Amino acid sequence: MAGNSFGRIFKITTWGESHGKALGVIIDGCPPMLDLSEDDIQVELDKRAPGNSEVASPRKETDKVEILSGVFEGKTTGAPISLLIRNIDVDSSKYEKIKDIFRPGHADYTYFVKYGIRDHRGGGRSSGRETVGRVAAGAVAKKILRLKGIKITGYTKQIGDITASVIDLNEIEKNDVRCPDKNTAHKMIEKIKEVRSDGDSIGGIVEVIASGVPPGLGEPVFDKLSADIAKALMSIGAIKGVEIGAGFKSALLLGSQNNDEMYIKACGERSESNGKIAFKTNNSGGILGGISNGDDIVVKIAVKPTASISKLQRSVDIHGKEREIRVEGRHDPCICPRIVPVAEAMMAIVITDHLLRNIISPHHPSLSPMGRGLG
Amino acid sequence: MAGNSFGRIFKITTWGESHGKALGVIIDGCPPMLDLSEDDIQVELDKRAPGNSEVASPRKETDKVEILSGVFEGKTTGAPISLLIRNIDVDSSKYEKIKDIFRPGHADYTYFVKYGIRDHRGGGRSSGRETVGRVAAGAVAKKILRLKGIKITGYTKQIGDITASVIDLNEIEKNDVRCPDKNTAHKMIEKIKEVRSDGDSIGGIVEVIASGVPPGLGEPVFDKLSADIAKALMSIGAIKGVEIGAGFKSALLLGSQNNDEMYIKACGERSESNGKIAFKTNNSGGILGGISNGDDIVVKIAVKPTASISKLQRSVDIHGKEREIRVEGRHDPCICPRIVPVAEAMMAIVITDHLLRNIISPHHPSLSPMGRGLG
Amino acid sequence: MAGNSFGRIFKITTWGESHGKALGVIIDGCPPMLDLSEDDIQVELDKRAPGNSEVASPRKETDKVEILSGVFEGKTTGAPISLLIRNIDVDSSKYEKIKDIFRPGHADYTYFVKYGIRDHRGGGRSSGRETVGRVAAGAVAKKILRLKGIKITGYTKQIGDITASVIDLNEIEKNDVRCPDKNTAHKMIEKIKEVRSDGDSIGGIVEVIASGVPPGLGEPVFDKLSADIAKALMSIGAIKGVEIGAGFKSALLLGSQNNDEMYIKACGERSESNGKIAFKTNNSGGILGGISNGDDIVVKIAVKPTASISKLQRSVDIHGKEREIRVEGRHDPCICPRIVPVAEAMMAIVITDHLLRNIISPHHPSLSPMGRGLG
Amino acid sequence: MAGNSFGRIFKITTWGESHGKALGVIIDGCPPMLDLSEDDIQVELDKRAPGNSEVASPRKETDKVEILSGVFEGKTTGAPISLLIRNIDVDSSKYEKIKDIFRPGHADYTYFVKYGIRDHRGGGRSSGRETVGRVAAGAVAKKILRLKGIKITGYTKQIGDITASVIDLNEIEKNDVRCPDKNTAHKMIEKIKEVRSDGDSIGGIVEVIASGVPPGLGEPVFDKLSADIAKALMSIGAIKGVEIGAGFKSALLLGSQNNDEMYIKACGERSESNGKIAFKTNNSGGILGGISNGDDIVVKIAVKPTASISKLQRSVDIHGKEREIRVEGRHDPCICPRIVPVAEAMMAIVITDHLLRNIISPHHPSLSPMGRGLG
Repeated sequence: MAGNSFGRIFKITTWGESHGKALGVIIDGCPPMLDLSEDDIQVELDKRAPGNSEVASPRKETDKVEILSGVFEGKTTGAPISLLIRNIDVDSSKYEKIKDIFRPGHADYTYFVKYGIRDHRGGGRSSGRETVGRVAAGAVAKKILRLKGIKITGYTKQIGDITASVIDLNEIEKNDVRCPDKNTAHKMIEKIKEVRSDGDSIGGIVEVIASGVPPGLGEPVFDKLSADIAKALMSIGAIKGVEIGAGFKSALLLGSQNNDEMYIKACGERSESNGKIAFKTNNSGGILGGISNGDDIVVKIAVKPTASISKLQRSVDIHGKEREIRVEGRHDPCICPRIVPVAEAMMAIVITDHLLRNIISPHHPSLSPMGRGLG
Repeated sequence: MAGNSFGRIFKITTWGESHGKALGVIIDGCPPMLDLSEDDIQVELDKRAPGNSEVASPRKETDKVEILSGVFEGKTTGAPISLLIRNIDVDSSKYEKIKDIFRPGHADYTYFVKYGIRDHRGGGRSSGRETVGRVAAGAVAKKILRLKGIKITGYTKQIGDITASVIDLNEIEKNDVRCPDKNTAHKMIEKIKEVRSDGDSIGGIVEVIASGVPPGLGEPVFDKLSADIAKALMSIGAIKGVEIGAGFKSALLLGSQNNDEMYIKACGERSESNGKIAFKTNNSGGILGGISNGDDIVVKIAVKPTASISKLQRSVDIHGKEREIRVEGRHDPCICPRIVPVAEAMMAIVITDHLLRNIISPHHPSLSPMGRGLG
Repeated sequence: MAGNSFGRIFKITTWGESHGKALGVIIDGCPPMLDLSEDDIQVELDKRAPGNSEVASPRKETDKVEILSGVFEGKTTGAPISLLIRNIDVDSSKYEKIKDIFRPGHADYTYFVKYGIRDHRGGGRSSGRETVGRVAAGAVAKKILRLKGIKITGYTKQIGDITASVIDLNEIEKNDVRCPDKNTAHKMIEKIKEVRSDGDSIGGIVEVIASGVPPGLGEPVFDKLSADIAKALMSIGAIKGVEIGAGFKSALLLGSQNNDEMYIKACGERSESNGKIAFKTNNSGGILGGISNGDDIVVKIAVKPTASISKLQRSVDIHGKEREIRVEGRHDPCICPRIVPVAEAMMAIVITDHLLRNIISPHHPSLSPMGRGLG
Repeated sequence: MAGNSFGRIFKITTWGESHGKALGVIIDGCPPMLDLSEDDIQVELDKRAPGNSEVASPRKETDKVEILSGVFEGKTTGAPISLLIRNIDVDSSKYEKIKDIFRPGHADYTYFVKYGIRDHRGGGRSSGRETVGRVAAGAVAKKILRLKGIKITGYTKQIGDITASVIDLNEIEKNDVRCPDKNTAHKMIEKIKEVRSDGDSIGGIVEVIASGVPPGLGEPVFDKLSADIAKALMSIGAIKGVEIGAGFKSALLLGSQNNDEMYIKACGERSESNGKIAFKTNNSGGILGGISNGDDIVVKIAVKPTASISKLQRSVDIHGKEREIRVEGRHDPCICPRIVPVAEAMMAIVITDHLLRNIISPHHPSLSPMGRGLG
């Protein structure tokens, strides 16, 4: 059954396989009159690419995006935006010798059971390359959000048992692990190198923050903002957990500790009021009852260690025989740094979609006849 | 925007407020010819009701269900099933004196900002009573799953820092906290009583397991089984985190520790093979690449402490003034035991929906002309 | 598969069978702060009821509506609105003797083949009583539309070969066939009486007009306003054709005849312009390229003769034997007059949904942070 | 709001503009293991292309399709299928001089009002070229349907007042108007030439028949097969009416004339029965209560005359001034012959989607655990 679309009003549909001809995404429902160029998208794709990092895959993924539709004279038209990224540096030969064996921790077995066919070349549709389309679409969502003063920031919070103790957003893009804590970044990089030299991989935690989100986004009781964020992030390969605000730590708290008390914040810039509602703490992670409360939305995701390792593992093959396997190839020993732009993209898409969903009272001016015509 | 439906093929739509006339659910897409009676549903609703437990709200919620449509002579017809539960023991008087104040940790403020109107009686639509419809629909899903040999089991794994150390499924319904560990259950109950006498509340962790799920369920890349489970569970009020299998623990693991190795399990009962594929560990929680792998699906959810506490808290009112508040009323000091049937229901609904979504090859017999007619 | 919901933002889900306990509808996505009472809905249900007309079924369908949720102190809250109508005058005895025979022209056979079960009592879910929920939801949609100056009007245009030659909207509710032409109404009534006394039934054409619709509604290329109107109206039982504007007559026209030329209409009431764009003719029926153009939306639907007739017909039974059948019971000899409120309701629902879907440029004020909160 | 997807299980998303870089479609939900090559799709695209016909546009649309994803070693994998068609023969110069004027009968005005931006080059997204994606996806749907013995056939039934009096399916592809009646075809061609030489255009009626459809397809009460067919066909540009079976003619009939009587047809090839249910007439057009009844599905659509004509017409421009316009360019004087493959494609897509939607009883073998795995 169709499962490659996400969003209701701002809807993306991704396609493409790791070693196929190309990958891409259709963005349907992007509002018109938005300035949009290939450069806007390329900058995000470049963040996702392995680049020259010493802790990422040496695979070259130049990932040049081409806008095929939906933009006219530099502006979106309201028509679907089709983005194409050709696969260039494809080398399927390394997959030949394991084409019949299910790689442990991978989707090889489940795809084969479900579809009865196996595209063994780099995982096919189950590959992390599938996220190219997500990141491209997220770049468009981010442009819309910026117009509304909303900013999405992700970073690597933890790798193994090494945790960032400082959150300095200016540090994120300065180190190869996208850690907001300079000192911790070094330790993380050392750890990853050590793990890689051992033929192994390691997991971690990525955090994403959306600031400037207006209160009121989310459609209870099922399409809560929290629920859609959970789905969006859990749909990324390698993600095994999602928590909002205090998350699993809230299990340990008393109500009197966990409840975020409210107060009136002095606020000179808004003429209609002497202040605005604010919260003393943010255990809620910016979402109450599934609706944004105006505070930062704070989400953590658990990233499992990359399944492809060159250590010997036991497995079975498509003929039902037990086999041993070493997964060669060019794999990231820790995928956290490259998950960051993907997680940001999914967060941006969810919030953009909910911004557009937030339909209001029939008495509100936005529901009056549109009258953007001529007469 | 409409947000009260969940599922694609087996789709539920819930409605109703805490202190309104009634609550209910429409189940659309239930297969025909399923035996279904009000008793089948009542048994699940009774689990959700506070009952006589010493650790739950004293509110009487008899919650008698009435089947209004979709069942003829004891069997489902394929038409939508409408289930109605009238509200009986409604006492809105306690909410009068806090009708203008936003309760900390509650959805009062966000609903007011979003909708511009406040139903102060017990939280209105944001109340936990909204889950009545989920549990009723879940009872129907469970009946379908049982026909396929699939079983859903939930329990309280942790309250505060007290964690079950034994998982004995037979113990769950024998104690008031639905803990599978008899000894731990006592400690949890003592802890809840202590917290309650202090006018406070406490959080915890609930775990849900689905066993007997065939491999192949889940529709990548967005409607992955894991993604839909995350959405389903995160959409429950009070839930702030979801993890599958090793979840956040996988951040600490190496690939060689986290990957679940595969082997062939001796298996006499299946004639077409000498064995079936099995996994030595279950860090994946039964889901690989977003598709079920045949192993148990294991999910943990973080339950925040009940927001309604009688301790004094600082807040603001709808006029933008700072106020103090004590939330009186009949609240559960720890909602975990009552979240259990709700979490089971959502899990059952997701898996039923995906069971029905799992369309297969055009050469498969189930896609041949149906021919259940007469000639 | 779930098929009982309609709409995206303003979404209805109907349920209930002809001779079941009750019927109803959930309206999800109704904007908050709309004044709504049971009387608002009852007035539309009363139009649908057979009443005391001499050309309708003598079945008593009092159809009293109860609002169970979504309204607080007379205003919608944004929560789903559940509307319940209990079945009162149910007499299933007449269906006993034909319970095994498929009525020609009815859905008996197709429901049985599809679902493998037969609710023989009055057609079950396939009955025209199913439209009670549509009309109730349509009443809410009409309230929203009226706030925007949009009006929906339906009438019987033709019965057999008798066609209204005058369209006087004031006449519609003054005669039993809802014909806008007084003189033609008499002829239609005589025709229906003649057909009924003969144990037969007759078809006709209903026309629905939406006036005051702003230009810009419709979401190409699949969710065009025209496409959704076609689906909405074709989903009503007994409807076998839908045409917009010139419809099938356009097959006979030249482009120079069919194209609606545009001009600037003098228009004193709009200060921002000296005139507004208007069309000299309306062959388009108010829709161009699937988007409303500001002119009246004009739709005709073909209504087949009621399938239930007391004339002897040949058929087969559920055992595969040939049988003869006379359908007794209390049937409308011509369903057109009672289709009118149903067609109006579906039109109102489509236009309301598209009014809310019409999201606009990111630079438009309606997309600025909502700011309806306190601070 | 997103509106460029159609279908639930077998879902297509189209994109592209008349004079943009390319057009295409994503097919999501295509079952795996279907043989599929570019040739399978090209053959349908070639039918849609203007070719060398003397009654079509001289625009060269070679429309070579490229499969970018979803197919591995000649078989579908269950992953989304991305089909790309580059625009080659694009000449936007003729649109320069009318870039500010709204062409009568076109979507120019409504797109401009809705989106606030105008892609004047050949109509942009509102162009008939948009149907390239539909036809490409329809080719895949037809392959699935053929496996089930279902055949879709369309033809030009009427042009102006010239109607086919014989239906010989072998004639359709032998003449330039795709008329199933050789003699009438000549008259139609003469009529079109006459109209074209006059700078005008003309409308017509296209009929589409689906044979071999099993009974049971359709999901009442809104997603009826008839309702989805109506939406699918009304979503095609230039279509102003849809009727099923007797359609508008049923307005003139008595119930005793319109009801299709049933009988048992001798049928040697089915061992489990001596015969099968059949209908003496087919006024229902193969659909009863919104569900297929096993008979041919017969649908007619009203095609308006092409809006682009070189006759002088009055209109207005984007500055609100009255103007005169002649639409130059390479337009089809009658679009019926080229609508035929588009209408077939939409019909094929609807029926494929409903074939896959037709989920059945929980006791049916197709719902048993899939067991296509190894063990």
